[in-house]
Amino acid sequence: MTVLAARFRDRFLLPEGVVYLDGNSLGPLPKATTSRVAEVIKGEWGRDLVTSWNKHGWIDLPRRVGDKIARLIGAAPGEVMVADSTSINLFKLLGAALALRPERRVLLSERGNFPTDLYVAEGLAALLGQGHALKLVEADEIVAAIDDDVAVVFLTEVDYRTGRLHDMAAVTAAAHARGAVMLWDLAHSAGALPVDLHAAGANLAVGCGYKYLNGGPGAPAFLYVRQDLQEEIRMPLTGWLGHAAPFAFESGWRAAPGIGRALVGTPPILSLAALEVGVDLLLEADIEELRRASIALAERFIAGVEARCPALRLVSPREPARRGSQVSFAHPEGYAIVQALIARGVIGDFRAPDILRFGIAPLFIGEAEIDAAIGHLSAVLERREWDRPEYRKRAAVT
Amino acid sequence: MTVLAARFRDRFLLPEGVVYLDGNSLGPLPKATTSRVAEVIKGEWGRDLVTSWNKHGWIDLPRRVGDKIARLIGAAPGEVMVADSTSINLFKLLGAALALRPERRVLLSERGNFPTDLYVAEGLAALLGQGHALKLVEADEIVAAIDDDVAVVFLTEVDYRTGRLHDMAAVTAAAHARGAVMLWDLAHSAGALPVDLHAAGANLAVGCGYKYLNGGPGAPAFLYVRQDLQEEIRMPLTGWLGHAAPFAFESGWRAAPGIGRALVGTPPILSLAALEVGVDLLLEADIEELRRASIALAERFIAGVEARCPALRLVSPREPARRGSQVSFAHPEGYAIVQALIARGVIGDFRAPDILRFGIAPLFIGEAEIDAAIGHLSAVLERREWDRPEYRKRAAVT
Repeated sequence: MTVLAARFRDRFLLPEGVVYLDGNSLGPLPKATTSRVAEVIKGEWGRDLVTSWNKHGWIDLPRRVGDKIARLIGAAPGEVMVADSTSINLFKLLGAALALRPERRVLLSERGNFPTDLYVAEGLAALLGQGHALKLVEADEIVAAIDDDVAVVFLTEVDYRTGRLHDMAAVTAAAHARGAVMLWDLAHSAGALPVDLHAAGANLAVGCGYKYLNGGPGAPAFLYVRQDLQEEIRMPLTGWLGHAAPFAFESGWRAAPGIGRALVGTPPILSLAALEVGVDLLLEADIEELRRASIALAERFIAGVEARCPALRLVSPREPARRGSQVSFAHPEGYAIVQALIARGVIGDFRAPDILRFGIAPLFIGEAEIDAAIGHLSAVLERREWDRPEYRKRAAVT
Repeated sequence: MTVLAARFRDRFLLPEGVVYLDGNSLGPLPKATTSRVAEVIKGEWGRDLVTSWNKHGWIDLPRRVGDKIARLIGAAPGEVMVADSTSINLFKLLGAALALRPERRVLLSERGNFPTDLYVAEGLAALLGQGHALKLVEADEIVAAIDDDVAVVFLTEVDYRTGRLHDMAAVTAAAHARGAVMLWDLAHSAGALPVDLHAAGANLAVGCGYKYLNGGPGAPAFLYVRQDLQEEIRMPLTGWLGHAAPFAFESGWRAAPGIGRALVGTPPILSLAALEVGVDLLLEADIEELRRASIALAERFIAGVEARCPALRLVSPREPARRGSQVSFAHPEGYAIVQALIARGVIGDFRAPDILRFGIAPLFIGEAEIDAAIGHLSAVLERREWDRPEYRKRAAVT
């Protein structure tokens, strides 16, 4: 085991014999989550009922967990709020970005961005009906495509299929040079590698709670607004918990100070409590050490797979510095291969059209798991174990 | 005890000696919730990890719980979806309503509607920038105010302060007579009294999971779209889980069939699982019987308070048929009185500027609790127990 896995693996509940390379889709269960959520249910909700909003600080939970996430992404306290889903937060911040650049009409992203990011932008542009257009280019064309019509550039730092890592500082600088707002989606970054929003000068960011933060299925997401923008930003979703005085029940909306205005409705406390446990666990680790371990494990995985599985083609960048914390290969039978692997206890996932995706989360993945995964993958391919009808039948969630 | 409380009270975890008249703010904990959420955490997430989305039907959970809620509000299977917060769902459906009436510019509601409903409408109108206006009138002026400029009438059936109940069928008919879309907020109705959206002919509705549905703090909310509107409706929030083929990762958004398009991001499964337990419990009760018990208890409460607390002024409608499942009184020192009551173990809540609000949920409130509440309330007033600085100091959440 790596030093990190030796120290942290036992903090997660991981089924015997399973090699879990899908923490980038749904992080595993931290053991402490079970008792913490039970305490919130029985000891807080059950015992103190509605008074828990004050007594147990539920009302502060979105900001408290946000401040913790801030430490993982190079942000300051008061710049990050936990709220809603990544998609909803994207809507808020894309809407806010357009309001910051009212004379511009283009939302720029890359064709391969995660679909929900594109869908949200498409829906927002259609909703506004003011001639806004979503412009999509290839990843390496982004910088050249930023012109004076671009209101906002929005990108996911780590590509969900290939793991390719954007140069956050360089792209942000390019956006700013042309007067555009820069919004980063950190879904596959937060908790997976060092992120420094301040150093990059990013204006806005969103991210996901249920991947590398191990917050549980559908954990609330987060958003970041750089401190100097907070007072001028206009939120397109204006709900009571983002009001300056939610319990004054005023008839008109007044934005809460700072990041507070990013809240909309009442946050799901049970899911939020689970997220806090995942974030706390990650804060115990050193993110630079985690990155080094991730790279070493990924290099070991790539070398092993390429040596033993010639039918797989690496689609992740070969250079570690250009890769997030995942390794992806392509194969025309990718879906069936992933199912056959799962049957052997190696859980990765498939991403259309042909990608086998393996997330490497060094808190619970060490050399032994990587070597086991290589062995199973080569066996599945050599024996054509994937070639069965039941492995080709697509499930609702892939 | 009433028959209902005798049958159901033991199904909730209620602290000894507490009279809980705030189930309309946060419903109490059903005992079964603790073990169900623990099972989802350890037995599903912990054991089956990401495969739980298929294996344990997480992907179907928002619709499954929606179908159950449908039975409480006079809707059919496939018409209700659990998603996001009430505020976010309001945004979706107000946006969808405006798209159904593109030539009209007015969103009509009442001044006393719950503030988040008004804030969301205000924010939407400002975001669209197409001259939409929020028009607010008094409750009894609504019908007269519906003219050919009104795109959507949106009202909360039960007033959160006074408990006044709208005539859903009559107002809906009036809206339809002038060609307006009718949207009901069922926050204080669902699980509290019989609701029949079909009989009323309502087009759209939203509601809350954490009040009378006992779904837990910040439980996900729900929304309703009448079946015949589902294919034409345009959702302003377009995320991947509302896509026709979320796992095909297509670049453009295509609405999922029917109510499916109402989803946006990944739902918070732990909070959703808790909500399902609350809804299941309510489905065991007969809603007509629950309504009769609620009225009997409210009448008893009003009579007792009016006999023993002359300083309190009833602000709820006196006629039971015009009242939801709560009773409210006004007093200039309302806030401090509520705090003094809480110190005695009677939990109601305060709503600005001067309202003491008592929710009556007959699954766990019977005559004994009503009589105890009357006794404590009269003692607090007679002894001026409220007249202490610590009771006047406002907490973050009132």
